[in-house]
Amino acid sequence: MTDTVLLAIDGPRATITLNDPAKHNRLNTEGLGKMRAAIEKADAHPDVRVTVLTGAGEKTFCSGYDLGSIPSGKEARPSSETHKDSFETVMDRLEAMRMPTLCALNGGVYGGATDMALACDFRLGVKGMRFFMPAARFGLHYYPSGLRRYTQKVSPSFAKRAFLLSEDFTDTNLLAVGYLDWLVERSEFNSKIDEISNRLATLAPLSMVNMKRAIEQFAQAEPDIPAIRQNMRECATSEDLREGLAALRERRQPDFKGR
Amino acid sequence: MTDTVLLAIDGPRATITLNDPAKHNRLNTEGLGKMRAAIEKADAHPDVRVTVLTGAGEKTFCSGYDLGSIPSGKEARPSSETHKDSFETVMDRLEAMRMPTLCALNGGVYGGATDMALACDFRLGVKGMRFFMPAARFGLHYYPSGLRRYTQKVSPSFAKRAFLLSEDFTDTNLLAVGYLDWLVERSEFNSKIDEISNRLATLAPLSMVNMKRAIEQFAQAEPDIPAIRQNMRECATSEDLREGLAALRERRQPDFKGR
Amino acid sequence: MTDTVLLAIDGPRATITLNDPAKHNRLNTEGLGKMRAAIEKADAHPDVRVTVLTGAGEKTFCSGYDLGSIPSGKEARPSSETHKDSFETVMDRLEAMRMPTLCALNGGVYGGATDMALACDFRLGVKGMRFFMPAARFGLHYYPSGLRRYTQKVSPSFAKRAFLLSEDFTDTNLLAVGYLDWLVERSEFNSKIDEISNRLATLAPLSMVNMKRAIEQFAQAEPDIPAIRQNMRECATSEDLREGLAALRERRQPDFKGR
Repeated sequence: MTDTVLLAIDGPRATITLNDPAKHNRLNTEGLGKMRAAIEKADAHPDVRVTVLTGAGEKTFCSGYDLGSIPSGKEARPSSETHKDSFETVMDRLEAMRMPTLCALNGGVYGGATDMALACDFRLGVKGMRFFMPAARFGLHYYPSGLRRYTQKVSPSFAKRAFLLSEDFTDTNLLAVGYLDWLVERSEFNSKIDEISNRLATLAPLSMVNMKRAIEQFAQAEPDIPAIRQNMRECATSEDLREGLAALRERRQPDFKGR
Repeated sequence: MTDTVLLAIDGPRATITLNDPAKHNRLNTEGLGKMRAAIEKADAHPDVRVTVLTGAGEKTFCSGYDLGSIPSGKEARPSSETHKDSFETVMDRLEAMRMPTLCALNGGVYGGATDMALACDFRLGVKGMRFFMPAARFGLHYYPSGLRRYTQKVSPSFAKRAFLLSEDFTDTNLLAVGYLDWLVERSEFNSKIDEISNRLATLAPLSMVNMKRAIEQFAQAEPDIPAIRQNMRECATSEDLREGLAALRERRQPDFKGR
Repeated sequence: MTDTVLLAIDGPRATITLNDPAKHNRLNTEGLGKMRAAIEKADAHPDVRVTVLTGAGEKTFCSGYDLGSIPSGKEARPSSETHKDSFETVMDRLEAMRMPTLCALNGGVYGGATDMALACDFRLGVKGMRFFMPAARFGLHYYPSGLRRYTQKVSPSFAKRAFLLSEDFTDTNLLAVGYLDWLVERSEFNSKIDEISNRLATLAPLSMVNMKRAIEQFAQAEPDIPAIRQNMRECATSEDLREGLAALRERRQPDFKGR
């Protein structure tokens, strides 16, 4: 039996693949547990400098959470909302990964998967992909951190169009409103993933880890300035900075160790 | 005598029309009182799922507040700044409407009317429309909630271009900077209003009301997470969610009751 | 010997020119001191209504801070991070200028200069210009206020693309993501500077000064509402507002005094 969530670590790059194309790479509770495990493994691996999240097939990146798993009415179990493999908790864990993350949207993105992409640092789309968030079509209220990500990482207007109007977005719309960072033809999709991943793999890890955290704090209007200054000093006295400046002088590629 | 502010309620849709085209649909204190009354009536009406705000005529949506009514010098009455029919208070009341609001900009938008549009959830523009905010041309300082809306709902850059430079914006500029959500030809204007309104009318009211409030809180960086979680639980156990999921299974349109 | 930072005050317009084109208008500690002095002089001058910041030559606006001046390893002097002529301190001083500021990007913008542009209110680019932020290429951690400006004044996505991925941006990318407010051909560059500066020079100073401060506060999610209301009352009773409304009635150009 094939696994529905795959993790491959190839040198500095981890790739998490949602691998259930017959079901539009939809996630159920079991899949969420596998995804959390893959995230934690990639995040703890000392070689990993970038994690790519993508889906199998050419039709759909992911159609979100299996609606059959959504509790409603008598079956609602509010106490389980924040259990460790809830959709919200796993997306928050993805957002908290130390090193940069790239969501490579190989096809359409729907429901909770639209927030999965926002929990990554970068979003690459493929021409022809589509997007919608059906919460208001069923009567669902989305969880707080997802509403926050839409509002802070794209814009309040986009959050309203997606959640209140449940608008269908086309590929070029998604680029125009800032949901996608890049939009490429399918023939260029894999080479663009390589280009972005390879670049991230060569940059200074300590610098990326700490600046990622600082940017997240500013995005949430809760910067911890003393901690940011401490991280800044740590980078200023790091082996990596000495190596980076030496490589610049010597016109060669730096070899960063992350310390 | 024709009324300068019209309210029409047609099933789930309320339409507020600024109806003084000879005066560019400008509002004076009396008009603001009428507008507040219309907003409150639409907001309290149990059938209303979406409120459309538009202007009569094809030239101007609204040219803002009647400058002759602006107090200056000896006539300035600071105590009246926040009285219940001040421009600021009425715009804040519009922003606080429970259900989604669509500003249908049938023509140019100037002065305080530019903020009226931002106090709505969605902005639909018509090709050829223009925009400017003349506050700095006269020496006015705009009220705080208007400066907030520009900054948080579009961007600090747009707020500076509009308020500090008093820049004239064209229709395509307004779309590019994110002030407009959609820009259509005049021949498609009414059908686009219908499309958006009809969709909003079919979605789950409880879900829209609560997510609207949460998105506003995140936009203002003041989320009340426990209250958002409580609203989320309310939706999760609502009749609406059961109806929504049943309709999905039965491949039919849901019939939401808002409870 | 030619000075590396020039200040020219011509009526209401101050122009600060980075004037070391052979070195890509790069700044060292001495240049930063000269820049701070120019900023303070322009900011204190009673006639100045707008400050234009630009670079000499057609190739580069500024390539940032002289990397040879960056402390690393044993030479790191954390205590000097916030001394009065540090890059961070001078950029913060630029951002705090009372009247509007225009960054006229006459060519490429790299490193710390990308933040210098964000510390200005408006950014005008010239076709063909390029942009990158190399911090993560060397292992540097950028200072907090720069990370804040990127995140709050453009977007979290742009901050991540610039700092974490160290992406190379083209002129049209910079316009699309909202880093540039305007992008013009080189043949139109000077006339666009004049157009923007001349307009700012005619607008009401008290209104611009106070609204600039309020917009900055909202951008940082720390508005001082009572102070904003007080400034609003000050404008409402100002000579400038009386002059502005009189000029409107009399169909003439207003002559503002800033009081």
